[in-house]
Amino acid sequence: MTTASDRRTIETCITALVRGYVRVPSDMGLPTSCEELLHTVGDQAVSSNAGGKRLRALLALAAYDAALATRGDGAGHEPMTRERMTELACAIEIFQTSALVHDDIIDDSDLRRGKPSAHKALATICADDGVGQSLGILLGDLLATASIDAASGAVEGSRHGPQILRAFLDMQRNVDVGQVLDLSVGLMPLDDPNLLERASLGVFRWKTASYTTIAPLELGFLCAGWSREQAGIHARAIGLPLGVAFQIEDDLLDAVGSSTGTGKPVGGDIREGKRTVLLADALSLSDDRDRRTLRSIFESDHRSDEDVTQVVAIFRRSGAVAQSEERIARLRRESATALDALPVGRGDRERLCDTCALFAARHSPDAD
Amino acid sequence: MTTASDRRTIETCITALVRGYVRVPSDMGLPTSCEELLHTVGDQAVSSNAGGKRLRALLALAAYDAALATRGDGAGHEPMTRERMTELACAIEIFQTSALVHDDIIDDSDLRRGKPSAHKALATICADDGVGQSLGILLGDLLATASIDAASGAVEGSRHGPQILRAFLDMQRNVDVGQVLDLSVGLMPLDDPNLLERASLGVFRWKTASYTTIAPLELGFLCAGWSREQAGIHARAIGLPLGVAFQIEDDLLDAVGSSTGTGKPVGGDIREGKRTVLLADALSLSDDRDRRTLRSIFESDHRSDEDVTQVVAIFRRSGAVAQSEERIARLRRESATALDALPVGRGDRERLCDTCALFAARHSPDAD
Repeated sequence: MTTASDRRTIETCITALVRGYVRVPSDMGLPTSCEELLHTVGDQAVSSNAGGKRLRALLALAAYDAALATRGDGAGHEPMTRERMTELACAIEIFQTSALVHDDIIDDSDLRRGKPSAHKALATICADDGVGQSLGILLGDLLATASIDAASGAVEGSRHGPQILRAFLDMQRNVDVGQVLDLSVGLMPLDDPNLLERASLGVFRWKTASYTTIAPLELGFLCAGWSREQAGIHARAIGLPLGVAFQIEDDLLDAVGSSTGTGKPVGGDIREGKRTVLLADALSLSDDRDRRTLRSIFESDHRSDEDVTQVVAIFRRSGAVAQSEERIARLRRESATALDALPVGRGDRERLCDTCALFAARHSPDAD
Repeated sequence: MTTASDRRTIETCITALVRGYVRVPSDMGLPTSCEELLHTVGDQAVSSNAGGKRLRALLALAAYDAALATRGDGAGHEPMTRERMTELACAIEIFQTSALVHDDIIDDSDLRRGKPSAHKALATICADDGVGQSLGILLGDLLATASIDAASGAVEGSRHGPQILRAFLDMQRNVDVGQVLDLSVGLMPLDDPNLLERASLGVFRWKTASYTTIAPLELGFLCAGWSREQAGIHARAIGLPLGVAFQIEDDLLDAVGSSTGTGKPVGGDIREGKRTVLLADALSLSDDRDRRTLRSIFESDHRSDEDVTQVVAIFRRSGAVAQSEERIARLRRESATALDALPVGRGDRERLCDTCALFAARHSPDAD
């Protein structure tokens, strides 16, 4: 069962992995100023990795714990140790941070986990926005490779290591593809809310569910010795609706939550003009006047504080907020049903269920 | 021996790997506009990978061929097939392209291999500079993971696969670190030419020699069955001076070459204000007046065509160009001496020597 001690182990492990990876080689023999910049990037790597709720790592561990007691479909293999599983779980977290660092450059976001985003922090240290962005790109690259390096180290020596590493690499690919798809949704016109709804929901599978819920579950099952087929089927059945619900709630919190809850300014998505399911629903459900207002606000180049307030009001009175809440509830039920069908003991299932519930309790101040 | 047929195989293999990786999943069910953007990124991935001289892949294959006939120090293992070696060699090329895509964003470069750089091409297609840059970041991410995916596929099933994959990941890390160090050199003041010289030359190991010469040699030796220790020692002895010479020549060609030879505009480095060994030498060797001119030009925010012409003239008359040529010749001799000490047959060594010579013959129109 995942515990407070797991959380501490995860934090220590992530810091050690990142620190070890972005270190200054001892035989470098370079001028101090060169080594200093590498130290700065190394410190930022550690700092960017700090402060996450570790939901993905905890889910991977919980899936492993639940699956370990059963042989699954019998086509599986020798399980990995829990220590190795923990390292792999940390690799998922490091990969997430790498994606967030690049995502914040793409979205030009100032804040992440309640602190300046990586490229902004680096820009401040170097007193140069361009250098900050360049270092942010390189930091994201370093962390992405660091995560694969960590995953590769975790599975080394295991006969099914290559299979598990492949699942890890597939996760990265799906997220990269999802990020491209996310940009494509951002470019969609607003004249067809149904199309926008279908696109947004479809993209959530790739950009969010892939690494938030599906891959942690799959990697946990695989490390417990389950076959790739069985691990994949159950991970998707439980993880896809859970991950999509997670993203819908994320977008909902951005509009009607508090910045203490997300570490990001409220209404940030609206200010960016981001196309969301919430917006698609509001366009579908509102009257002509509100629909025209929404389109004119979202089609303009910039959005003021007043615009944000107005959009939030329309999101509420159109019923879009309520509809997102219904979507979330429906998807969570779907995920729970799939969890019921998981071939594990009752106690194990309940504990996994508790961890899945963490994905639905993000109104607390330390939410990811 | 590497042949024209190897070159064709390499091109086909790279395109197949990239196309297969950045494909639209068949069960995606997304609106056409979303899938279209993914197609666009996929096409750009193929196009960005085209047009390279494949020096790194050819060097890896040549190292493999040379090393295959001997057992090395006897501590080695079963060699991989030449087909698998070719896939791994292509993975190095794909990784290079991923690094170039991000590097062109960092340097804000318009051209690469004689065509628009990836983010510029994507900006043109999407008629939006911001979207072009965002897609460029994601394309670099996709290609970096694609290269590891390809490397991981190439070594799968080999008992020493994890060791070879580790060498591949180390290469990526070294290049990422090298890129950060390269930025640090770019931030150095110009009042200490000796420090600048030491920094530039030191950074070349990480940002260039790492993946241009050292890793191809090391991976070739490893795949031929040599031990990690022996592969590493010889790869560094031959590859480090060869790779540093390659980078010095690259900087030299940028200043005094032709744009047909490099696919990049002449004087691009000078226009960017890039700190190079050439600049360090010119600062050391020129008289007070020229030194003041260099500093004032390189310390200002922008450099005109006239500035570029003036800098090139100072590079020549100070003796910095001649000094770079001497540096290159000295490093090549050092590399040749290390090659002489390689424990392989005479014919094998000569063929590897021929491939190393490709790194010194870049005045041809298709240079990388």
